[in-house]
This record gives sequence, C-alpha cells and structure tokens, in this order.
Amino acid sequence: MNLPLGFRYAATYAGIRKVAKDDVALIVCDTAAPAAAVFTQNQVVAAPVTLARKNLRTTRGRARAWLINAGNANCATRTGDKVAATCVEAAAKALGAKPAEILPASTGVIGVEMDARKVVKALPKLVASLAADQFDAVAHAIMTTDTRVKTAFAQINGQVSLAGMAKGSGMIQPNMATTLGFVTTDAVVSPAELQTALKNAIASTFNCLTVDGDTSTNDTVSVIASRASGVRVSAAAFEMALTKVLESLAKQIAADGEGARKLITIDVEGAATLEAGRKIARSIANSPLVKTAVAGSDPNWGRIICAAGYAGIPFKPSDVDIYMQGLLVCQGGLAAKFSEKKLTQLLDQPECSIRLVIKGKGRAKARIWTCDFTEGYIRINGSYRT
Amino acid sequence: MNLPLGFRYAATYAGIRKVAKDDVALIVCDTAAPAAAVFTQNQVVAAPVTLARKNLRTTRGRARAWLINAGNANCATRTGDKVAATCVEAAAKALGAKPAEILPASTGVIGVEMDARKVVKALPKLVASLAADQFDAVAHAIMTTDTRVKTAFAQINGQVSLAGMAKGSGMIQPNMATTLGFVTTDAVVSPAELQTALKNAIASTFNCLTVDGDTSTNDTVSVIASRASGVRVSAAAFEMALTKVLESLAKQIAADGEGARKLITIDVEGAATLEAGRKIARSIANSPLVKTAVAGSDPNWGRIICAAGYAGIPFKPSDVDIYMQGLLVCQGGLAAKFSEKKLTQLLDQPECSIRLVIKGKGRAKARIWTCDFTEGYIRINGSYRT
Repeated sequence: MNLPLGFRYAATYAGIRKVAKDDVALIVCDTAAPAAAVFTQNQVVAAPVTLARKNLRTTRGRARAWLINAGNANCATRTGDKVAATCVEAAAKALGAKPAEILPASTGVIGVEMDARKVVKALPKLVASLAADQFDAVAHAIMTTDTRVKTAFAQINGQVSLAGMAKGSGMIQPNMATTLGFVTTDAVVSPAELQTALKNAIASTFNCLTVDGDTSTNDTVSVIASRASGVRVSAAAFEMALTKVLESLAKQIAADGEGARKLITIDVEGAATLEAGRKIARSIANSPLVKTAVAGSDPNWGRIICAAGYAGIPFKPSDVDIYMQGLLVCQGGLAAKFSEKKLTQLLDQPECSIRLVIKGKGRAKARIWTCDFTEGYIRINGSYRT
Repeated sequence: MNLPLGFRYAATYAGIRKVAKDDVALIVCDTAAPAAAVFTQNQVVAAPVTLARKNLRTTRGRARAWLINAGNANCATRTGDKVAATCVEAAAKALGAKPAEILPASTGVIGVEMDARKVVKALPKLVASLAADQFDAVAHAIMTTDTRVKTAFAQINGQVSLAGMAKGSGMIQPNMATTLGFVTTDAVVSPAELQTALKNAIASTFNCLTVDGDTSTNDTVSVIASRASGVRVSAAAFEMALTKVLESLAKQIAADGEGARKLITIDVEGAATLEAGRKIARSIANSPLVKTAVAGSDPNWGRIICAAGYAGIPFKPSDVDIYMQGLLVCQGGLAAKFSEKKLTQLLDQPECSIRLVIKGKGRAKARIWTCDFTEGYIRINGSYRT
C-alpha cells in the first residue's frame, strides 16, 4: 500500500496505561489542511470530543494534527477540559501550530483523572520521532481490548491515496471507551467536501456496525486531507474510496468484537425505507439470542424472525423469507426444507450472513455488521477494571 | 398459603418435550368466570395467542380454563391455527365447556409443527386428575430453561386469595419461547375491572422486566376470577394485591434469567416523565457492559452513566448522581469518593441495586428489574436447539 503524501506519524509510551505499551500518538500533516470529523451522539461526551468539535468550528474545518492517547478516556473527570486543553496547547507549541489546529482524541477508562503532564512530557520525544513510515506504530498505539490492528487503504486512479486506521472492539466500551478512526489522504478537497463525504460514508459503514448496542462517550472518526498529491478527483470518486476504507475498518471492528469468533453480515431487503430496514437489521444484530445462536452454529431462524418482529416496524410474517449463509431456512414465515447438518457446517465459518427478505412493495436494502456473542465477551467485560 | 377457591389443576406428560417431564397442563375454574389477559406486542404472534385473544373477545372476557403446553410454541408453523383450535375443542369437550371458554398458551421451540393428537390423547387423563392441590404441579410443568419454579400468593383482608405462577428465564427466548403468567383468584370482580387491574399491574411489573431485551412471540399473562369467595373488595385493593403477585413473579423471572446469578433493581429518579425514566432505566438494564460489570462485582459506574447517555433522553451529566448498593459512586457526573474494596464486596450479593438520580425539576420514579450477564447465558443459548 502507498501511504498518502504529506503526513508523519509517531507513537510512544507516556505512562498512561499500566502496561508499558505505546499510549500516546501523533498524526501530523505538513500544513494546516482540510479536516472533517463525526463524533458520538451520547449525552455524556468526553472532554477531547468537546474540544475537537470546538477546534474544527474555530478553524472552519482545518487541522494540522491528531493528538491521540489510549489508557484514559479523559471523560467524566473534574479536570477533563483543562487536561485536554493543556495537551493540545503543548502539542501545538511543539509543532509550531495553533492550538485550534490540533484535534485531540482519547480512549480508555472513564471517570479517572488524567495527568496532562505525562502527555506534555512525552511530546518532545514524540515530535522528534515523527516519520512518514510510522503509520502502523500509531495504529498499534490506539488499540485497547482490540486483538488485531485495524488498517485499510485505497487509491484513486493511482494518483490519490487514502489510509485509515481504527480501534474498537466492543461497538464501544464506555469503560475502555470507544471507537476511534483516523483517515489520512492526499486528495485535493475542500473542508466542506470532506465533511459531506465523511458524513455520507459513515452512514453506510460505521453507523451500520454494532457489537453490543452500546454507544461510547468518545467515539470519533476523522479525516485530514493534505492535498499533497496535487490531484483533485470527483466528489463521487473520493466518497467511494473513503467508503471503501471505512467499510473495511468497520468490518474489522465487528470481526474483532470482544470475544467474537465470527463476523455477521445482516441484510434486510424489502422494507419501505432504508431506515425501516436498518431498524429491523439492527434489532436482529443486537439480539443476544441471535448472536449466541450464530456462535453455536445453530441455524435458529426462529430467533431471527422474532427479533425482526420486535423492531417496531410492521410487516406480515407470511411475507418473510430468511436465508442463512445463502440457504433458504424460512419461507413465508414458515420453516423451509433445508439440511440442518449442512447449514450447521456452513455456519461454522469466520463469516456468516443472514438475509431477511420482505416480499412486497418495499425496495430498500439495508446492511448491518455485527459479531457473534461468546463466553469471551463476558470474560473480557466482567473483569476489565478490577 | 391459601389457594383461591373454585379452581382445580392438573399436569401430565404428553410426549411434546423430548425429556419425560410434564408438558401439558390445565387450570380449570368451576364455572365460566371473568378473565383478562395481556399478550405479546411482537409482530410475529403464535397461534395460541391469536386464538386466546379471539376467544376472550367472543366471550367478552369470560373463561373456564387455561390449556397450557411446554416443549413447542406452536408458532411459525403451517398447521398452527388448526392445532390450537383442535386442542381447545378437545379440552372444551372434555370439560363440558364451550371452545371459546378455553384459553390456550404454548411455550417451547418455534417453527416446528406441533402434533395436536398428543394433547388430545392426554386430555382424558389430565381431566381425570384435576385437583385443587395440584397448583405446584402445573407451575413445574410450564418451566423450560427455568431453574426454579416461580409462584406468588396474596390475600386481601383474609377473605380473598390470589395465586400466581410464571415461567420465563430469558426475558423471552423466541426459541424456548416465552414468558407465561397465570393468576387465579376467588375475588368477585367483573371482566372489565379485571382487565383494567391487570393492565395497570402489568405496567409496573412484567413490563419493567428485561433479561436480554428480546420480546417473545408467545408472551401471555392472564387472570381468571372464580368469584368463589363471594367477597367484593375495592378495585384499589384488588389491583394492589395483583400487583404484589405479579411483582414477585417478575422479580423471580429476572433472578432466574438464563445464567444469572444476581437480580439487579434499577431505579431512575428525576426524569421529566415516568416513560423517560423507564427509557433510561431500560437502557442501563439492557447494556451488556453494565450486566457483565455487575456479574464481576465491578463498581463500574462509567458504564452506567454511558448507557443512560444513549437512551435518547436529554440530560446534563453534571446533574447526575449514581448509587450502587446504596453507596454514592458518581456525584454530579464525576467520580465520588468511595471504597472500591467495600463496594466490590457489597456487589458480591444475590441482589444488586443501581440508582441514578437526575437533580432538577423532574419528579418521576422509574424502576426496572434485570439480571447480570454471565458465561452461563451464552452456554444456554449457544447450544439449546442442537
């Protein structure tokens, strides 16, 4: 893969995490450049989210760098705003940028005061080690309960590059807090174009992802465009490439859901609107009964139609067909003839598909990703903090 | 406890379950009597629910008996309506009643054709064994993944009795399908009074119960009033006694949630409306992260405020206090000072309480029951059918 031109990356250990693993990182653009971001919808919002949002408003969609830390979400603390501001000011000074050009992002435990001095102290080393080839180091530094590093890349016409990294392993864990995603690109785009492309790409990727139905205080996905390629591509081509990167990251997050062994893709076809279809798909995706059935390779379509039935979207059960791994298991709301043995084998794969079709006038096609639900999820979340 | 006058009970094994455990039961009132019921809100509805609803309409709220089976939900099958009708007609004949006076209820696997002949064949033996003291036998017969029998009793002025039984162990399991609840009473009430009392009592008991957020195809809670006490009590006194019985049953179901080791009571105070408070409480109750934290006796209030934050109800985090087991853990949205060691010990109990208070103008008090989330849930649901 080719990394976008105009960016440098660095990560180091600042002592925020208990274990000695990189926990603070910088992604720096050579110049202040068009930037866009989407943030959590939670009523409870971490200080870095509030500050990043404010900074983007102040600069009207421009940024120089992301300053990211893992190990502490800097959320629900007395000193949160001050800590975020201090870190951002120190980074700005070290980079010769304005504070408003630095976008902060944090992930980790919430409700524990964060020591800004650790970040301030780490910054000189961090800035000194900035390099164009340290993308992977940052992708590793932002991991928390993630078991795999998550990166994705795209090119447009061999001229423009996009590189994305993400962390997240419960859809969010409010405690481990969070899904974070960062995409660098060297495309020539305006801040407004970037925000539109990101908003559209998120709607069909990160917003169609659920691990446990929880939504974090720190969720952030952000893009900076260095324009260093000198190439302006069409808005459609850029949005498509960005969607490709975010879709790959979203699927990697689902597949790496806490304790997960399987990525589940849920398609709902034939609802009256996209939103109605997504509601049904999300209801199936969030049903612990469906997720445990897939974990056990159990072709239990009764749980699927039942979860669809309480999504709050009216439909006639007799209009519903359900497919698992491409096999028809429920026809017109009733059991179809299928080999349970064969389907159990088919479900014993790292990727499983569930497709629910409502036969009627609706034409909407909705897709949601999730993962199966295993004892591992309970183990990870029952004992994280203690 | 005193059982209500005017009822007889019987249970037997009809061969519907694979294991030789009672799977068909009758609760019979000496005369056709006032009856009321509430049913599932799912779009996918089992045949016995449809028929019971229709019968209650036909009789304008009178019934002679419940005919209940476990082992097959009689849902999403080709022959469902016919099977339910055949069973009900046979029971009516055996009891000398009208078919519309029989209320059917089923729980068990869905999508598998049910053999009505098994029930028809068992009916003579069942009717012959009807006895006033077989209440417990029926309470056992309706159990599926339940690990404990669930019964509750109340008296009004030493003159009127109520006796309730329930099954349910996931809030529902669409596959094991269902929460069922049956209450007998010898109070003198009209069908309309009975339906009002049941509707009100359900709102603050069974409707405030969640194990996994799933809602079954077969959920039914029903009351028959034999009037055999000859005593008419006030509507308020009756509703209070019925609420007491249903609250006890609801808490027993939560405590026996699949794999659960702990009953969790969630109180939300200070929301603008009861419905808003319940939305927040339900969001906390359905969060796998909160439920796994309680399982691990982890005083992780960050997950609680986060789950409250995505309930869709606006509030200021700085207005929020949270108590666990009566201990203040979060004050004004920030960590309170508390002994983590002491609280961990307090959480290591069969009953845990979470109380979230929004300080402001709201006066609503909402309460929801749920259970913790353990590896046992996954084990039970990952391998039930296979």
